Amino acid sequence: MSWTITAEHIDGLARGAAVLGTGGGGDPYIGALLARQALADTDVTVVGLDEVPDDALVLFVAMMGAPTVMVEKLPSLDEVVEPVRALGVHLGRPVTHIACAEVGGVNSTIPIAAAAALGLPLIDADGMGRAFPELQMVLPTLHGVTASPLAFSDEKGNTGVLQTVDNSWTERIARVACVEMGCSVMISGFSMSGVQARESLVADSLSRCIEIGEAIARARDSKTDPVAAAVALLHGRELIDGKVVDVQRATTTGFARGRARIDGAGDTSITLQFQNEHLVAEQDGQVLVTTPDLIMVLDGESGEPVTTEALRYGQRVRVAAAPADERWHSAAALAMVGPGYFGYDMRAHRFDGTISTGGTETESGVLSEGNEPR
Amino acid sequence: MSWTITAEHIDGLARGAAVLGTGGGGDPYIGALLARQALADTDVTVVGLDEVPDDALVLFVAMMGAPTVMVEKLPSLDEVVEPVRALGVHLGRPVTHIACAEVGGVNSTIPIAAAAALGLPLIDADGMGRAFPELQMVLPTLHGVTASPLAFSDEKGNTGVLQTVDNSWTERIARVACVEMGCSVMISGFSMSGVQARESLVADSLSRCIEIGEAIARARDSKTDPVAAAVALLHGRELIDGKVVDVQRATTTGFARGRARIDGAGDTSITLQFQNEHLVAEQDGQVLVTTPDLIMVLDGESGEPVTTEALRYGQRVRVAAAPADERWHSAAALAMVGPGYFGYDMRAHRFDGTISTGGTETESGVLSEGNEPR
Repeated sequence: MSWTITAEHIDGLARGAAVLGTGGGGDPYIGALLARQALADTDVTVVGLDEVPDDALVLFVAMMGAPTVMVEKLPSLDEVVEPVRALGVHLGRPVTHIACAEVGGVNSTIPIAAAAALGLPLIDADGMGRAFPELQMVLPTLHGVTASPLAFSDEKGNTGVLQTVDNSWTERIARVACVEMGCSVMISGFSMSGVQARESLVADSLSRCIEIGEAIARARDSKTDPVAAAVALLHGRELIDGKVVDVQRATTTGFARGRARIDGAGDTSITLQFQNEHLVAEQDGQVLVTTPDLIMVLDGESGEPVTTEALRYGQRVRVAAAPADERWHSAAALAMVGPGYFGYDMRAHRFDGTISTGGTETESGVLSEGNEPR
Repeated sequence: MSWTITAEHIDGLARGAAVLGTGGGGDPYIGALLARQALADTDVTVVGLDEVPDDALVLFVAMMGAPTVMVEKLPSLDEVVEPVRALGVHLGRPVTHIACAEVGGVNSTIPIAAAAALGLPLIDADGMGRAFPELQMVLPTLHGVTASPLAFSDEKGNTGVLQTVDNSWTERIARVACVEMGCSVMISGFSMSGVQARESLVADSLSRCIEIGEAIARARDSKTDPVAAAVALLHGRELIDGKVVDVQRATTTGFARGRARIDGAGDTSITLQFQNEHLVAEQDGQVLVTTPDLIMVLDGESGEPVTTEALRYGQRVRVAAAPADERWHSAAALAMVGPGYFGYDMRAHRFDGTISTGGTETESGVLSEGNEPR
C-alpha cells in the first residue's frame, strides 16, 4: 500500500531511524533538517516492496563517510541527486525508484530528499534493517546484487563512477576517494530490478522507523517510559541503565572508532565497542551481544537515540539490544558483518546472549565457518 | 609525415625516452618489453601533429603510480586498453588517435601498445617533453584541456571514471585510488581535438627519443662518448662525471622520493633531489638546475639512462642538464611544476644556471609571481 510522506513524519522517522542505526548512520537532527527542506515544496510517495514492478530500476542513495564530518557538511539537494545523475550515463535507462541502503539518522532521510528532488517514489524498505559502516554490508550483496556501477560526488562538483570486480573493492576505492574528498560524499549504486529488491531488501523499514520514533515521543509526552516503549516494539531487551563514565573515540581512515563504558546500579558495568555503529557489548569481560544484532544507546530520560559521536562523559543512558533481520545470521552474512570481520576475536552473540551459529543457510544441519573470527 | 613504428625502433625509443624522462617514467627495459610484445603482430602508424584532423578525438594513455611498483606489475595488453574502453561510454564518439602524456621508459611505450591493440594511429608528440610525477602536470592543463573524464583500471578488473572540477582534483582522487589498487594503474583521459593537440602538445617527441636513444648506442658502438652525443642533441651541458656515494629513497603516497649525492673529481660534488623525477641539482649548497628544466643521470660508460629507482651506491654516472620546452617557463607553468610546488624553497634555475623569471606569458614586461616558492 502506498502512502505519502510529509514533513510531519520526519521527526519520528529520523528518531526511529537513529534508534535502528545503532549509534551510526549520522545525526538524526541533520537528517531531519535535510528531509524537511526537501519536503517543503513537494510530497514523496512511499510504495511497499510488493508494489514495485518486476522490471523497476531501483537505486540506493546514501551518504558515505565519517558521521563526525557529515555534521559539518550538510549536503545541498543538488548534491544529493548528483550521483544518481552520474549513474544515468552508465545505466542507459531511467531510474524508477529510490531506496535506503541502511536505516540511520542521515541515511534514512537523504533518500527522501533524493526522491523529492528527482520526483521518484521511495520504497518502504532498506538494505540492512540497521546501519553498518562499510558499503558492501547490505543484504543485496548476499543476494548477488553488485554495488557497481557506483557513483560518488562531493560538494565541490567532483564525481566518479566505479565498476569493480566485487562489492568489497567498491568499498575500498570509494572509501579512499571519500577520505580524499573530505571524509563525506554522496553515493548511489546497487542498481536492482523490482524482483531483486523484493528478494534482498528489508521490508517496511520506513514505517517501522516512524512507528518507533513516534512511540518514543508519545511515551515521553504521556510520562510513561520511552525506552521501554522502543524496546517493546523492537522485541529486544534492556542491558543497563547507567551513566557514561569513559569514552574513547578517534576518526581514522574515514570511520569513527572507539569504546565507551557505562556504569549502572551496584557494580554493573557495560563496555561498548563501536566503528560508526555499536558492534560489541560486554559485561565484566563477558560478551553480551555483538554485531549483527542491534546494540542501541538511548538517553536515559527522553529515550532519544544517542549516536556514537554524541556519547559524552556523564550522560545518563540506557543500553538496549534487539534482533537483527534473521538473514544477517547466515554463514555468509556473519563472514561479512560478524565480530570477526571487525577484528573482535569472539563468536557472534545474539541479543539474548545465545551464540549465532551461522547455520541459517545450511539446511543440511552442517554448520559452516561463517561465524569464525577472521 | 607519417611513418611506421616497428619492433626495431623500440630499443632506441625506450632509451631516449628514459633520458628525457629525467629519472622517472619507469624502467625502459619494462617499457621495451611491452611495446615489442604489442608490435609482434602489428605495426603502428605514427602521425605528425600537423596531420591530425581538427576534429580528431585524441586521448592520453599512461601508467600512473610508483615506478618501483610498475617493475613488478607489467600490464597485459588487455589492461592497457581497458581505460580507453571505459571512456568510450562517456565520450559518445570513437577515439581517433592515441598520444603520450609524457616521455619516459614506460609512458612512451605504453601508448604504442595501446595504439597497436586498438588499431589506432599514435601521434608523434607528448604532453610534457619530459616526465613529471603528477597527472595534472602536462602542457594541455595550461591550455585549458580537462583531464576529465579520466578512466583508471587495474589488473584485477576494477575501473573508475572521474569527472572533476579541475585537473588537480583528478590527480588527488586518481592518486588515492591508485595507491589503494596497488600503487599502479592504467589511465586514459585529457580528451582533445586535433586543434587542441596541436596547440598544447610537444611535437616530434617520439622521433626525438629514437634519435637520442640511437645516438647513444651508435656512439657506444663506435667507441666515442655516448653521453656527449646525448648532451649535444639535447642542447644541454654536463654537470658532473663521478660516483654515487649516497642514495636515500622511500616509496611514499605513491611516489618514489629521495636524494642522491654524486662525487666527482677533486672536491666537486652534486646533490640531486627527486620525486619520481630528478627535480633539483645543487653543488656545495648552490642551486645549479631545477625543475622544469631537465636533470638526467646517465651511466658513466654506456650512456644508458639511470632511473631514480635504479640509482645505486658506487655507480659511475654522469649528470647532465638540458632545457625543457619553453612553455614550462611561463608563470602559470612554474606555479604548477616549479621547485616551490614540490616544497623546495628556491627559484627555478634553468639548465645553464640562470633564473627562470616566469615572464614568458607576460609580454608587458611585468613579471608575475609564478616563480615564487609555494
